[in-house]
Amino acid sequence: MKPNFSLRLRIFNLNCWGIPYLSKHRGDRVKRLGDFLNMESFDLALLEEVWSEQDFQYLRQKLLPTYPAAHYFRSGVIGSGLCVFSKHPIQEFTQHVYTLNGYPYMIHHGDWFCGKAVGLLVLHLSGLVLNAYVTHLHAEYNRQKDIYLAHRVAQAWELAQFIHHTSKKADVVLLCGDLNLHPKDLGCRLLKEWTGLHDAYLETRDFKGSEEGCTMVPENCYVNQRELQPFPFGIRIDYVLYKAVSGFYISCKTLRTTTGRDPHSGTPLSDHEALMATLCVRHSPPQHTPSPTHGPAERSRLISVLKEAWAELDLGMAQARWWATFAGYVIGLGLLLLALLCALAAGGGVREVAIMLWTPSVGLLLGAGAVYLFHVQEAKGLSRARAELQHMLGRAREAHDLDPESQAALFLGQQEGDRSEEQ
Amino acid sequence: MKPNFSLRLRIFNLNCWGIPYLSKHRGDRVKRLGDFLNMESFDLALLEEVWSEQDFQYLRQKLLPTYPAAHYFRSGVIGSGLCVFSKHPIQEFTQHVYTLNGYPYMIHHGDWFCGKAVGLLVLHLSGLVLNAYVTHLHAEYNRQKDIYLAHRVAQAWELAQFIHHTSKKADVVLLCGDLNLHPKDLGCRLLKEWTGLHDAYLETRDFKGSEEGCTMVPENCYVNQRELQPFPFGIRIDYVLYKAVSGFYISCKTLRTTTGRDPHSGTPLSDHEALMATLCVRHSPPQHTPSPTHGPAERSRLISVLKEAWAELDLGMAQARWWATFAGYVIGLGLLLLALLCALAAGGGVREVAIMLWTPSVGLLLGAGAVYLFHVQEAKGLSRARAELQHMLGRAREAHDLDPESQAALFLGQQEGDRSEEQ
Repeated sequence: MKPNFSLRLRIFNLNCWGIPYLSKHRGDRVKRLGDFLNMESFDLALLEEVWSEQDFQYLRQKLLPTYPAAHYFRSGVIGSGLCVFSKHPIQEFTQHVYTLNGYPYMIHHGDWFCGKAVGLLVLHLSGLVLNAYVTHLHAEYNRQKDIYLAHRVAQAWELAQFIHHTSKKADVVLLCGDLNLHPKDLGCRLLKEWTGLHDAYLETRDFKGSEEGCTMVPENCYVNQRELQPFPFGIRIDYVLYKAVSGFYISCKTLRTTTGRDPHSGTPLSDHEALMATLCVRHSPPQHTPSPTHGPAERSRLISVLKEAWAELDLGMAQARWWATFAGYVIGLGLLLLALLCALAAGGGVREVAIMLWTPSVGLLLGAGAVYLFHVQEAKGLSRARAELQHMLGRAREAHDLDPESQAALFLGQQEGDRSEEQ
Repeated sequence: MKPNFSLRLRIFNLNCWGIPYLSKHRGDRVKRLGDFLNMESFDLALLEEVWSEQDFQYLRQKLLPTYPAAHYFRSGVIGSGLCVFSKHPIQEFTQHVYTLNGYPYMIHHGDWFCGKAVGLLVLHLSGLVLNAYVTHLHAEYNRQKDIYLAHRVAQAWELAQFIHHTSKKADVVLLCGDLNLHPKDLGCRLLKEWTGLHDAYLETRDFKGSEEGCTMVPENCYVNQRELQPFPFGIRIDYVLYKAVSGFYISCKTLRTTTGRDPHSGTPLSDHEALMATLCVRHSPPQHTPSPTHGPAERSRLISVLKEAWAELDLGMAQARWWATFAGYVIGLGLLLLALLCALAAGGGVREVAIMLWTPSVGLLLGAGAVYLFHVQEAKGLSRARAELQHMLGRAREAHDLDPESQAALFLGQQEGDRSEEQ
């Protein structure tokens, strides 16, 4: 590769809000999205919440001349909702479905049925290996009392681990998607600290779009205004994140977002805002692109976020075990009830009542059994993520303890911590 | 690294048959396994079917002085059964749970509840990066009419993809485990062709152990003799596979298996035979270790096995869709029956009978609903693997068509194919 190598990448990301029968003006929005993508001719368009495979097939046909390569990531009962359109050939693709993704009995939330996942595309661009990831994490339905927090943290960790282990030979790593995490949320910090990915919104000097880079804004007519009440400008939960791994330097030249409306017809493309980034990749000697996890300050931050995530997963595990135990008691109770009903039915007397109660008690038993199995599996999934976190925490601490610079950083960090506790 | 660098690795693999309450002499066998591992002091011991975490904890305590590092891979309701003990520090670990793993209603087979997975360990040995994988694929209960074939092929593909994408920067790749695949089975060929892994049994010049390297042999008193009847020497379904990726050369100096009995006490350690391999890794200029997927003959073989796997997954998908459609009809029937029963119960007359039939019809409805959802998800999972296979098939064909050498190989291959068809 030439030393003055330079590559410009135009990236598009949008959570399309494409729920069949439920999302307003879906057909019209998908059509306009196709027109827009064709007109803009991005290098890579990464989409989430394309729940209907027909929508994907429609877009595929429409975008074929401009984006000859495309892929739809299938998983779960409904699908992952993830798909990509690329101007360049896709060398390889694969996906990883998250171990934990909500609860099957929370049917009205539906995340469990979707099989949320992370999709990976490997592209070769002028000799450069680009690993592009697209994902959509579990939704946040109640920020004050978020019963899915442990699952989302576990997903963020699995995502970070998947990127970490599959991108070791990539020159450039790109992650786009709806993380359902605010920038300072634990999952977001964990992901960034562990992978070393940079946030396009924070890095670029040329941003135009919604206030504070928000990707769900009150100006958008499809957004539930009540949910956004605590956030006057909206929330930022969709991201373009990137890093260069070896001998390359990457920067975000421009970042644009839509602002709650379509410039042409007035109604927006989705309830989320689209992100459009222009990234520039240049050749750079390896020593100019140090890994962000190597410095003592970075290691301190990593240790702190790993500890926080560990504690959150631990809480989640306790919760899961509580539910499994509770379901175990209900199973016992259901068995007792069934035995009693059998005795009553055989003995005559209240026979009809006994028979009538069969259905609910068998239902109770089966339901409790399913809940028991589910929460045992949930506890195992959380325990797995916690074990990985604990191991990496141990290693980060070892590295920290061995490094004399770290001691000073730790001391300063402690002083700062003490000050903030005093305040 | 010095040019005369050389590393000797002693590896142990065993499917431990450690099912609580069901496996005979479990406690005694685990104890003797611990003694044996301590005595032999391998570099790495990879175990499958350690279903009880207590057994793992017991071994961990017992092996701590010889194997300071250990990990148990948790997943599913029961667990993956996988664990490792290492003489060397484990740098990183993670796991991938297979998307498809049998059917929840096949409770007597139980695989679905296990959450079968592949575990990855990253070790740094004298500056060499070793990626060690341990896995256990879905069991084969009936070779003549194997209803799990598509799932096992999909698992083999996911395993191959996981290794392919996570080992790109590894110097040496090692895979041990119970694949539940005979050496010439589709899944085994797919795995080997796609990853380029070599089979220790086929490569070594110094083998001692059971006839034909079998890992389930009729001499073993725990083995179901009836199941092994068609195979007089037994079957080979446990493997040590390896490859060197870049600038290294790896060979298997010796391979030993147990032969159906423990040399000391007479009863074997498990119903499977243990594999003990001594691998030697040496430095080698990159051009001496060509990737096995680069030659036209290898590409021809790859294309052929990809096509075969594609066809198998396609069959599996048709089956899954048939079941989903069938369950859909049963749901419709169940709803009709419920409506009828409601009408009868309200109208009097056969009221008691109507009420009595409530339980089975509600059960039918819920059961059919669950079966429907399961098979829709199964079809999605198979479709995902098929799409990945199809993509790689397309790429392999392109590479094949571009290469003039391939044309000759293809021609020869076709001639050979024609000859075998004529026979």
